[in-house]
Amino acid sequence: MVENPNGHTDGRRIEMYDTTLRDGTQGAEIALTLADKLKLTIALDELGFDYIEGGYPLSNPKDAAYFDKVRDLDLKHARVTAFGMTRRKGIEAKDDPGMQALVASHAPVITIVGKTWDLHVDEVLRVERDENLAMIRDSVAFCHQADTTDEVFYDAEHFFDGYRANPDYALDTLRAAVEGGATRLVLCDTNGGSLPEFISHAVTNVRETLGLGDTLDNPTGPLLAIHVHNDGALAVANSLAAIETGCVQVQGTINGIGERCGNVDLIPIAANLRLKLGYDCLRDDALKGLHHLAMLVYEMVGMTPVAGQPYVGANAFTHKGGMHVHAVQRIAHSYEHIEPDAVGNQRRVLVSELAGASNIAAQVGAKFGIADDRDVQRKVLEKIQDLEHQGYQFEAADASLELMVYEALGKRPAFWELGHYRCVILKRQRDEETSTEGTVKLNVDGTTEYRVAEGDGPVNALYQALIKCLADHYPEVRTIHLSDYKVRVVNPTAETAARVRVVIEFRYTAEDGSTRVFSTVGVDENIVEASWEAISDAFQYLLIETRAGITV
Amino acid sequence: MVENPNGHTDGRRIEMYDTTLRDGTQGAEIALTLADKLKLTIALDELGFDYIEGGYPLSNPKDAAYFDKVRDLDLKHARVTAFGMTRRKGIEAKDDPGMQALVASHAPVITIVGKTWDLHVDEVLRVERDENLAMIRDSVAFCHQADTTDEVFYDAEHFFDGYRANPDYALDTLRAAVEGGATRLVLCDTNGGSLPEFISHAVTNVRETLGLGDTLDNPTGPLLAIHVHNDGALAVANSLAAIETGCVQVQGTINGIGERCGNVDLIPIAANLRLKLGYDCLRDDALKGLHHLAMLVYEMVGMTPVAGQPYVGANAFTHKGGMHVHAVQRIAHSYEHIEPDAVGNQRRVLVSELAGASNIAAQVGAKFGIADDRDVQRKVLEKIQDLEHQGYQFEAADASLELMVYEALGKRPAFWELGHYRCVILKRQRDEETSTEGTVKLNVDGTTEYRVAEGDGPVNALYQALIKCLADHYPEVRTIHLSDYKVRVVNPTAETAARVRVVIEFRYTAEDGSTRVFSTVGVDENIVEASWEAISDAFQYLLIETRAGITV
Repeated sequence: MVENPNGHTDGRRIEMYDTTLRDGTQGAEIALTLADKLKLTIALDELGFDYIEGGYPLSNPKDAAYFDKVRDLDLKHARVTAFGMTRRKGIEAKDDPGMQALVASHAPVITIVGKTWDLHVDEVLRVERDENLAMIRDSVAFCHQADTTDEVFYDAEHFFDGYRANPDYALDTLRAAVEGGATRLVLCDTNGGSLPEFISHAVTNVRETLGLGDTLDNPTGPLLAIHVHNDGALAVANSLAAIETGCVQVQGTINGIGERCGNVDLIPIAANLRLKLGYDCLRDDALKGLHHLAMLVYEMVGMTPVAGQPYVGANAFTHKGGMHVHAVQRIAHSYEHIEPDAVGNQRRVLVSELAGASNIAAQVGAKFGIADDRDVQRKVLEKIQDLEHQGYQFEAADASLELMVYEALGKRPAFWELGHYRCVILKRQRDEETSTEGTVKLNVDGTTEYRVAEGDGPVNALYQALIKCLADHYPEVRTIHLSDYKVRVVNPTAETAARVRVVIEFRYTAEDGSTRVFSTVGVDENIVEASWEAISDAFQYLLIETRAGITV
Repeated sequence: MVENPNGHTDGRRIEMYDTTLRDGTQGAEIALTLADKLKLTIALDELGFDYIEGGYPLSNPKDAAYFDKVRDLDLKHARVTAFGMTRRKGIEAKDDPGMQALVASHAPVITIVGKTWDLHVDEVLRVERDENLAMIRDSVAFCHQADTTDEVFYDAEHFFDGYRANPDYALDTLRAAVEGGATRLVLCDTNGGSLPEFISHAVTNVRETLGLGDTLDNPTGPLLAIHVHNDGALAVANSLAAIETGCVQVQGTINGIGERCGNVDLIPIAANLRLKLGYDCLRDDALKGLHHLAMLVYEMVGMTPVAGQPYVGANAFTHKGGMHVHAVQRIAHSYEHIEPDAVGNQRRVLVSELAGASNIAAQVGAKFGIADDRDVQRKVLEKIQDLEHQGYQFEAADASLELMVYEALGKRPAFWELGHYRCVILKRQRDEETSTEGTVKLNVDGTTEYRVAEGDGPVNALYQALIKCLADHYPEVRTIHLSDYKVRVVNPTAETAARVRVVIEFRYTAEDGSTRVFSTVGVDENIVEASWEAISDAFQYLLIETRAGITV
């Protein structure tokens, strides 16, 4: 057995500094309400995050209000941090509105960001280089005087670019921060373009040159921290490289939200540190809460969760492809780098044209009692392959898949017979509204139902008319809600006659009061017919689920 | 100036092996049509990818069809590769259906995957360890005998886990592949959970133990390749670590699509190798095509592009408005790790109205002579902001953008007046074909044109009817072809009444014989109306382009 050279077991403790609330909200289209900021603060504290950067008090009233409200929370461990810039040039720190706002936040920790890179001192700040050093020193020292603040961190903006361009001056800025009393020197890869070897090289050099420690044995002395962005797709590796060479703190955001390509994602950082490298961070049982935390942040910022996100994505432990599935079920650990449960996630097995019969067995076998029936499984598989070739996809259409199994078993019930449907879309004049009318004629239980409805578009009109036809016979059709509608052109190189695939997600309230979600699929050259197919499938699936007596 | 220790300048060449078509399609909800597979093959070849793994001939008919069709393409550089498993236990390679399918693919390169990890040999394959070695050796050797194949690569599945568990046996499997004649030994981090230091350590050890080279000086001798997954969020770092320690080939997918958390994304790999590490890969001018390639793959697989994707994401060079913006405009390079143009991307500045107006100026200013007309620019900008709020997007709809500028200038010509259009979709019986009829009534040059056409769907029917109305007046409408059609639901949380955005791409042959391409956009709750809007815009744009006399 080869020892993993990464496998430290000294259990060195690493501080986790979350800046989702501040740097995370610099991301495009990302905003958090005050209520959400407070809710996230509690969630981060629960898991044992050490520092929570709450905002930039000067920048907007919401951030200032956060620091007022957060004092009412009874946090267990986390220390709330206020963020601000160094004082302006040529004035005293106490006269600077930004400095005043920081002190007024009464935050126990203040993080001051300043310029490292000579180019930025000369061209952006446009101050003498010595004045920049004084600005750093004064600002850190001023924050230390505040009664309510006992830790001041210094963010060295553009540190790695500055260090590459002019290492002596970059080190002088860090020395100025230490002179002001900074307890953490945060080395920032602000542009996110550095590579791990360079990060290791620079961190080692800074630590040795300034004579700094690499453990939290003396936590109030100056120590190094790392803060990186993901522009080169190396943020996680860069953060780990910095920790391995002596940083005691890592800064980042949940799900890696943030400007451009984002900050480093603290989810894989925490999981890699604890599960792979043997470091101590967060609370002992925190990792099981990572999945929940990630989903909470997606929900707050209104982002669709990234299915392939390491550790916590919906697909992170999803298995596709026939040959694997049988073995995965037997020796799962050999197909997964960690147990999904360790981070609060779970294993999933998918069906697709690549799948063997064992996938089908796994997904629907137990429900249909065909786990051992190879013949039916093969029949279903052939049908899937045939339909996928036509443009269908069943991975996201569980209900259509089940209906197909009923059909393969010769047990698909018919709740109605289609007479016909018709949809008319009429537009008069350029600025007049389009009118859309759907008519549906069905034979339901021997009765002819013939109904018409208007809709915002053809799909909506037919959907409404179909509900009218069915409601007297099957009142539960009124409990169903269409919750997502996706359209995809399957062969976009053809003319307008290309096929479209429609996948529709539905929700309904079951008799026990729980909400059930399922999806159906339809494919046709005509988008209306493809949608009709998905809608018909949905009502049939609903009726199978709600009406007893269908056994296979 | 500190030398970047990563800054190799020896220009060592690295082979790029793309497996988007094979391993990429193992990702959840990812499927590619045969036509898309061929289109992507051409796009990859254009940029200089060395190997394109086209599929697994035994697994499904679409993959087998790909190998037939791809032989008709006139590829410049790329070699198409077929993928398969080692022969089954206890039979000769020539009697194995998988082996036969590989040879029947006539692919010039074959990649054989086999077992490295003793646990998998014992528990998944359930064969004697020596028989596993024989299976590897025989399978590679058999593929070498095929007339049409001159390179055979060996994929060592679960290499890093196997090497950790039993390094001697893992090395024996590689030796068996070399004995069979493998020219690349592909070390796979199949579970994606390894860390860079371990990758470096293992690659170095393997290379030294087997006495392999680290350059392509003798490209047909056995050399190492790397193939990793992203489960630990370290795929890019792991691939670079392997290259730095002697792998000459990197395998991955475009946008990192693939099973679970995906394969390594070849976009940042190529960019990092060329721009940051000084390696030689792809064609010299290929990087400028990365953005286009990434978007092409997103479109094919129907995924929303990841805005924060390193290098090619929409936000990768986006700066949020505020104090930075002015500085960004002055010394952009100090806020960006590379020039966006180097990878075919562009800088975006959000919020700032001024910046918006200068974007417009850049995009259409020269053509319309409004580069210096701030008032018109502002008017256009306000209109864009208003329409984007409603769900429009003009980035992929150049023609609609130009029409809007004509409108803002009060110079949009009217080639016709809409009387009305109507579309009727009728479906009788379940298995009967849907019939679709479109009627369009227009006033064209004082003449009433009232025409009807059938179509495969509502969009096609109205499109055909509109052409009939216009053709006598403007014969050039017959030269236009609809070449792509995209639909996206803009607010997917609403019910069926959600708005849809339709973007349509058209091609036509200009008088000078050249092919022109342009795109239009329409947004409405009704997909038919949204499509009508895009089609109307297209014909109007065409007529402006072909009819002289419209000057601004």
